Amino acid sequence: MGKQTTITGLEVKDIRFPTSLQHDGSDAMHTNPDYSCAYVIIRTDSYFNGHGLTFTCGNGTEVVVAGINALSTMVVGKQAYDIFNDFGTFWRKLTSDSQLRWIGPEKGVMHLATAAVINALWDLWGRLEDKPVWKLLSDMTPEQLVSTIDFRYITDVVTKDEAIEMLKKDQPLREQREKDLLANGYPAYTTQVGWLGYSDAKIKTLCQKYLDQGFTAFKVKVGQNLENDKQRCKMVRESIGWNNTLMVDANQVWDVQEAIDWMVQLKEFKPLWIEEPTSPDDVIGHAAIARALEPHGIKVATGEMCANRIMFKQFLQHKALHYCQIDSARIGGVNEILSVYLMAKKLNVKVCPHAGGVGLCEMVQHLQFWDFVCLNGDKNGKWIEYVDQQHEHFKVPTNVKNAAYIPPTAPGYNTEMFEQTLIDHEYPTGKMRKNIEP
Amino acid sequence: MGKQTTITGLEVKDIRFPTSLQHDGSDAMHTNPDYSCAYVIIRTDSYFNGHGLTFTCGNGTEVVVAGINALSTMVVGKQAYDIFNDFGTFWRKLTSDSQLRWIGPEKGVMHLATAAVINALWDLWGRLEDKPVWKLLSDMTPEQLVSTIDFRYITDVVTKDEAIEMLKKDQPLREQREKDLLANGYPAYTTQVGWLGYSDAKIKTLCQKYLDQGFTAFKVKVGQNLENDKQRCKMVRESIGWNNTLMVDANQVWDVQEAIDWMVQLKEFKPLWIEEPTSPDDVIGHAAIARALEPHGIKVATGEMCANRIMFKQFLQHKALHYCQIDSARIGGVNEILSVYLMAKKLNVKVCPHAGGVGLCEMVQHLQFWDFVCLNGDKNGKWIEYVDQQHEHFKVPTNVKNAAYIPPTAPGYNTEMFEQTLIDHEYPTGKMRKNIEP
Repeated sequence: MGKQTTITGLEVKDIRFPTSLQHDGSDAMHTNPDYSCAYVIIRTDSYFNGHGLTFTCGNGTEVVVAGINALSTMVVGKQAYDIFNDFGTFWRKLTSDSQLRWIGPEKGVMHLATAAVINALWDLWGRLEDKPVWKLLSDMTPEQLVSTIDFRYITDVVTKDEAIEMLKKDQPLREQREKDLLANGYPAYTTQVGWLGYSDAKIKTLCQKYLDQGFTAFKVKVGQNLENDKQRCKMVRESIGWNNTLMVDANQVWDVQEAIDWMVQLKEFKPLWIEEPTSPDDVIGHAAIARALEPHGIKVATGEMCANRIMFKQFLQHKALHYCQIDSARIGGVNEILSVYLMAKKLNVKVCPHAGGVGLCEMVQHLQFWDFVCLNGDKNGKWIEYVDQQHEHFKVPTNVKNAAYIPPTAPGYNTEMFEQTLIDHEYPTGKMRKNIEP
Repeated sequence: MGKQTTITGLEVKDIRFPTSLQHDGSDAMHTNPDYSCAYVIIRTDSYFNGHGLTFTCGNGTEVVVAGINALSTMVVGKQAYDIFNDFGTFWRKLTSDSQLRWIGPEKGVMHLATAAVINALWDLWGRLEDKPVWKLLSDMTPEQLVSTIDFRYITDVVTKDEAIEMLKKDQPLREQREKDLLANGYPAYTTQVGWLGYSDAKIKTLCQKYLDQGFTAFKVKVGQNLENDKQRCKMVRESIGWNNTLMVDANQVWDVQEAIDWMVQLKEFKPLWIEEPTSPDDVIGHAAIARALEPHGIKVATGEMCANRIMFKQFLQHKALHYCQIDSARIGGVNEILSVYLMAKKLNVKVCPHAGGVGLCEMVQHLQFWDFVCLNGDKNGKWIEYVDQQHEHFKVPTNVKNAAYIPPTAPGYNTEMFEQTLIDHEYPTGKMRKNIEP
């Protein structure tokens, strides 16, 4: 499929928002983030361009920009549909360059750079096909879908043929599920009530605000101080009541035993899950925590910093998580995330995507919508995270109504920011710079 | 301890060698490497500077350079002995910056950058103390040694107190082991006979050359083509005989089952180990391979691309490797590698360091010497890898005699290159550039 479209250029920008001024986004590990992104524009000889990004926290965005520049020669000059028609092969090339591979492989800066480029390509593909990415994905045959995925290193859990079978099984149900999705959306939970730097009064006001909007699930950051955590969990529980859902998130501050001991102290607040209790690399540690907290009714969630599909594979194989929190901007973009959904389905683990500021919500909704339509068909006890930040900078922001994400109809991946935002927030030239530098 | 020494500057250079012209260093995954490094000079107000580096494969070195520049504000302006006297705390700060952490954490580009900076600091410390780093380490009390280590995320395998006990136990044996080391050196194996791009004639000549030099252990690259692997293993076995040791290295090209099937086909050549059979992130996969190859007498080795101490911890916990191949330039430098040695000792796994071009041999010898003197006291069935490349560019190159590394006596970490090398090989300004660009 596809018309002749040549990729003529790849531009990358360092975009930063001075969020540390209000402690928006502060947690036990990231006390002072300036929500940012490395922003990619893929230009073509057609009317359409692709916009993509990877999320960052301020300093270091310039390193990811350097990583994207290193990848750009593998993209510029290519025919867009040569990429899309054999996307899995292209994805492997992008992540396996004989020289660049050494400085990953498939992790950290280079994989964030890969995600930004890949996300821009999906945005371009959606625009060329005049479909939002979730619909582009949902309209693919099982064979087309798996052709976008690199199965290297995961065939011990799921092969290409098994993936096709899984997708075929639910193919007849797609139409009905799509109707449900368009009518009712997909449930969201909010993290906006629980950042560590917020005052008690602000937290109470925010709880009421999101209750009024229909939210029933709320996440609170923990891990800096046990007494403070107890007080804040108590306050949030009093605000939201005991019939709503509370999650807590430690952002990796604990060692394994410390995580277990701390969480036992918080069990009276009945958290559904503890998120990122320890290092995001520690599969065996998470499994130990999951086993120890099971008698206390607390589940384990992780994924926003999980490096790649090989790490996700092990978390799933080793029963090291109950909630798989894929992130749209960390592992190598849409293609690799699809493989995580397939493994999670095979091993019967719920996917509840991580989201946050600077476009993370805008992107990740597409993936969960596809999962609902083509793979899982079940929203029960699942949510997409919702963080109410930077939406105003996107041309097509998320549309969350009654605590549900409503599927977008605009073509692409909802990743395009306004031109004025890109000018004002470009670092270090934009006028917002003065709010970031000391 | 320590006199007043202020760090006044941090300079970083992109240094590349056109090794792809001769296929030096080519393997099944890295078909075309230009051995390179990001090279750090830490300047002080004293007579002494520190030189450090992290290894790279050509393209992408500029991304690591950007990563080092992002870290430099945490180093410049500090008192050197404020760092050295509480080095574990400094190491954690360098790897846990609230904003930079997101683009790692502790892996990929940012951790390579960390290694380069940390290695330069150890070189500086050695020079200030007028000791080679192996001797600096070996003269430390157990308490001093563990004060350089960040135990975060590894206390479920080894705590600071356990580490002190382990080191105390062997303290009385240090003097005698140091004498042994100075007299006999530490065994080396060679990889120089087995790069994939070499002709048959070249391989045979090289086998004879290294046999004549006294080598008894030889490593061959495999994984591109099974018939070709059989032919080359046969040729090398015929050259080196059956009483010497053969290792094989697949550089991550296989999936789990593929690795098992392929190695069963090579068992007739009696390889001691298969190195990097699959993704360096796949602990559970390596464990499956290790179990499957056990009846065939083939062990599993990995580590050169292992991201950090948390990944090593799991490889060790999960019996996923028999030979732990720490690399001096990948995980966050000397401090973190010391923690891996402690975990390997606790879990009774042999450490056989990875080395290669551009200073990897020069650096890693120090760590294995310390391990021998202070922790293990046993060289039996263990080797340091030896690759005969780029030594001529270092002011104090490795001294390998009769297939043994002889400990250096010059102060520092053997990381300083000649000024002319830094001028000629700096990319893209140096005159060697014409040999790298297409």
